[in-house]
Amino acid sequence: MPALYFAEAEYKARLEATKVEMQRLGADTLILSDPANIFYLTGFDAWAFYSPLFLVVSCYEDEPMWIGRFMDAVSARDTTYLREENIQAYPDSFVQSNTSHPVQPTCEILQARGLDRGAIGVEMGAYYYTARIHAEFIKHLPNARFHDAELLVNRVRLVKSVAEQAYMRQAGRIVDGAMTAAVERCAPGVRECDVVAEIYQAQISGSPEAGGVYTTSPPHFCAAERVRTPHGLWTDKPLVNNRPLNIEIAGSRLHYHCPITRTVFLGRPPDGYLRLAEAVVEGLNKTMDSIRPGIAAEEVELVWRRSIAKHGFEKEARLGYSIGLGFPPTWGERTASLRPGDKTVLRSGMAFHCMSGLWLEDTGIAITQSFLVTDSGNEPLTQFERQLITKP
Amino acid sequence: MPALYFAEAEYKARLEATKVEMQRLGADTLILSDPANIFYLTGFDAWAFYSPLFLVVSCYEDEPMWIGRFMDAVSARDTTYLREENIQAYPDSFVQSNTSHPVQPTCEILQARGLDRGAIGVEMGAYYYTARIHAEFIKHLPNARFHDAELLVNRVRLVKSVAEQAYMRQAGRIVDGAMTAAVERCAPGVRECDVVAEIYQAQISGSPEAGGVYTTSPPHFCAAERVRTPHGLWTDKPLVNNRPLNIEIAGSRLHYHCPITRTVFLGRPPDGYLRLAEAVVEGLNKTMDSIRPGIAAEEVELVWRRSIAKHGFEKEARLGYSIGLGFPPTWGERTASLRPGDKTVLRSGMAFHCMSGLWLEDTGIAITQSFLVTDSGNEPLTQFERQLITKP
Repeated sequence: MPALYFAEAEYKARLEATKVEMQRLGADTLILSDPANIFYLTGFDAWAFYSPLFLVVSCYEDEPMWIGRFMDAVSARDTTYLREENIQAYPDSFVQSNTSHPVQPTCEILQARGLDRGAIGVEMGAYYYTARIHAEFIKHLPNARFHDAELLVNRVRLVKSVAEQAYMRQAGRIVDGAMTAAVERCAPGVRECDVVAEIYQAQISGSPEAGGVYTTSPPHFCAAERVRTPHGLWTDKPLVNNRPLNIEIAGSRLHYHCPITRTVFLGRPPDGYLRLAEAVVEGLNKTMDSIRPGIAAEEVELVWRRSIAKHGFEKEARLGYSIGLGFPPTWGERTASLRPGDKTVLRSGMAFHCMSGLWLEDTGIAITQSFLVTDSGNEPLTQFERQLITKP
Repeated sequence: MPALYFAEAEYKARLEATKVEMQRLGADTLILSDPANIFYLTGFDAWAFYSPLFLVVSCYEDEPMWIGRFMDAVSARDTTYLREENIQAYPDSFVQSNTSHPVQPTCEILQARGLDRGAIGVEMGAYYYTARIHAEFIKHLPNARFHDAELLVNRVRLVKSVAEQAYMRQAGRIVDGAMTAAVERCAPGVRECDVVAEIYQAQISGSPEAGGVYTTSPPHFCAAERVRTPHGLWTDKPLVNNRPLNIEIAGSRLHYHCPITRTVFLGRPPDGYLRLAEAVVEGLNKTMDSIRPGIAAEEVELVWRRSIAKHGFEKEARLGYSIGLGFPPTWGERTASLRPGDKTVLRSGMAFHCMSGLWLEDTGIAITQSFLVTDSGNEPLTQFERQLITKP
């Protein structure tokens, strides 16, 4: 028996919600390739998405159908509730071949089930739905009409269930531990890679009651000159004194993510930098005070924008984004963003990473907060203090 | 001054080799989106590819042009040799927007440079070249003819330079250390996640002279029932006695990967399992003895196939694949494979992971070897003993 992460009834409810959206789009069939969406609807959990991997949802079937590389079908049996007939595979000879493509046998499977015709939704902008895959589907399914169903399931994922919220709280505790380990290890002369090694150790070992899994993205560990960059890579050089260092990491509990960013300053920060930190913390705190069900995403951003403007700062980038389930390359759900023009109304059960950071010409700072929207306000998912961390 | 990983002359040589292939394809311009190819030609190194990111190579320009999200342009300045005019960015409002797409401003940049017309090569099947991106290019570049240039740069990457080989040897030493750490920590009662945490710690801290960076894929850590699956995820359950456990990991030195897989058996293996291990080790050793410049990829596979057939085994999956530079989601270069029909002739400087493993109905085993092809034979990239690891 597979060890499912959620009750079967929860998977069924997710599938029904997906079918409602399919009907709204006018799609008979949905071919998913976003690994997070495949995981969400079935529980499928293996590093299989580097070969073409699909989940086919038919409005007229009670279960979706998994189609992937033959060697990963065992993982589909181990991790999903799907019946054997709904686990279909293509032979290894199609993998990274110069003369054939996995979509060919995939289409034969669809044909045998009568799923090769009608209105088919595909995730046009999903990371692993390549231009080649789409071209092959068009070639091999001449009786189908294709619709863009990108983000259809991502939007169903916006409001988290009680069970999902529990995993996100565990992810929060994991990342609090990882950030604590990082801060403890940071000191002048310690190699950046040795601090990052501690972060990984803490992210994966997790807590006694809940271990961690890989996160969608590596730590963004930006020291020295790289403090001006948001997504820089660590080096194996030693940390130096009197410089800020930005650490953005997540905890992942069964692929549910909770991110956090903190700036660590080794030495005594100059007054100007302390004022920058105060402006960011004040903006973050005011923003968090504003978050409750019913407020729009763009209104949240406006609270932050006004607060930092009083100190003479402006942030071009969005202030935050919806979080939850994630597979590489991003823990953002790619649906709602805290930014001007995003009119998404916050509802209880949604989760966001408030990315309150500023990257200026010569420096950077980030003190951020992940949170759940609750019935009456919000619940921070991490407990790490909202301050510039200084290590004199 | 950016800290380049390679001499500028090496980047120039890679660009020239790419231009030769472009001319063979008949492309005036190449739009790359595979992060490994972008890194290969420029050194660009940041976690930026989750937003559309392109490198544009023109046959008529001496430098390629980087186009990405505005906040990552700083990383382009920090990590590449490109001149300021060749680092171009689109505003943050285009990122994960419901109303616009980053390809719009990208095409305006191309137009301003006169690169919006003629024969343009794109990487149709590259992971981050989505169907949506391709559709947007077609829409916004009406004067261009598109050609599939997938793997064009990957093929240039097949033969590694002296400097690349040095990084791969460092990656080999890193992964030898990580496997040693894993085996030491494995014992009945130890949680799987705690062993994996040790692996990460060793992968990232690396050695005193060379730290590690993230690998393209997490450890495949397949214990208990999951030993039957090649790409399974660890759990937070304790390891149990009298069971095999497969660990597939890589070391990554500045994105150059060296993978290895070993099976660890806790307790005394049954005789049948020991015979399975002997067959795999014998097959691997014979295969390694056959590897020299001039042999074809499919001939290498045949050595293995014949050797294991004598013991009554067969492997459907390919025996191995080209390795080197890699970004998520795979450390395979997606060019040459050790399998029937692949006529790639091995040349000095190529590198492969010989994936000598067998996954059977009820168990699995993998004892593998990464190697460089040398002028006279081959050089193993890891020193870890080619044996089933038993911990009684």
